[in-house]
Amino acid sequence: MTEGLDSERMACWRAYIEASQRFFTRLEDDLRAESELSLADYHVLVLLSEAPGQRLRMGELAERLVFSPSRLTYQISAMQKRGLVAKESCPQDRRGSEAVLTAAGLLALREAAPHHLASARQHLMDDLDDAEVACLTRVFERLGRRLRAGRDVASTPSD
Amino acid sequence: MTEGLDSERMACWRAYIEASQRFFTRLEDDLRAESELSLADYHVLVLLSEAPGQRLRMGELAERLVFSPSRLTYQISAMQKRGLVAKESCPQDRRGSEAVLTAAGLLALREAAPHHLASARQHLMDDLDDAEVACLTRVFERLGRRLRAGRDVASTPSD
Repeated sequence: MTEGLDSERMACWRAYIEASQRFFTRLEDDLRAESELSLADYHVLVLLSEAPGQRLRMGELAERLVFSPSRLTYQISAMQKRGLVAKESCPQDRRGSEAVLTAAGLLALREAAPHHLASARQHLMDDLDDAEVACLTRVFERLGRRLRAGRDVASTPSD
Repeated sequence: MTEGLDSERMACWRAYIEASQRFFTRLEDDLRAESELSLADYHVLVLLSEAPGQRLRMGELAERLVFSPSRLTYQISAMQKRGLVAKESCPQDRRGSEAVLTAAGLLALREAAPHHLASARQHLMDDLDDAEVACLTRVFERLGRRLRAGRDVASTPSD
């Protein structure tokens, strides 16, 4: 294992991680200013709205959100109290449970989405030219696939 | 304000935000597996190690980390208990206070850094070609500058 990144790659890494962390904080602030939702609430609503029957097993939802089971339980309970989701036992597996999007959840998502996407455009997307869009899509689709597969094929130099 | 992103830009946005959130969770897991530090601890240590005299005013540190004052107070108190930082009143302004890197903090950072950078390489950086490095640097340096300036010049279409 070696620490070294050449100076171009180190500058790239710092720019990516610092700007992205700042950006996610800003997206959260923008979303909370325009809706009752946190970014985590928003992502839960998006995933449920896109799932067949607008419902997902808790384990699947935890995997998609990269949440621990206890964090997801807390997140879904909080959303359940606000009427945004319901929780039901799985038809196929009585021990398992599913989160189900409610009508109120769908309406909250539909109301928040334009504001959230306007933030995404304002801070980042409208600033990109077509070549940059293609580059970012390529890089982050590869990263997402690799992380989902859970097996990072590293080209670690032998030292 | 309009919701629309064309399909290429929507795919780009989803790839970026989903992969980055998954990636930050993985970086945090990797760091905790190899050290006693969270990502927030690590970033505090990096910022202090790079500051003149290895010390920063609390307000400056909050701004750099994009933390609220109360979140930063909590963060620094927790690090102080573990001996990683000290807190002193500012020489120039007795009401203000500064976080100061301790020797133990510097050693913890030096021990964690190779592992953290190895994660960065393994999951992302070693997979990028030179053109992708140049593109990401350009895009995220622009994003960082815009967010720091706090004045996003949006090219919002008039609709």
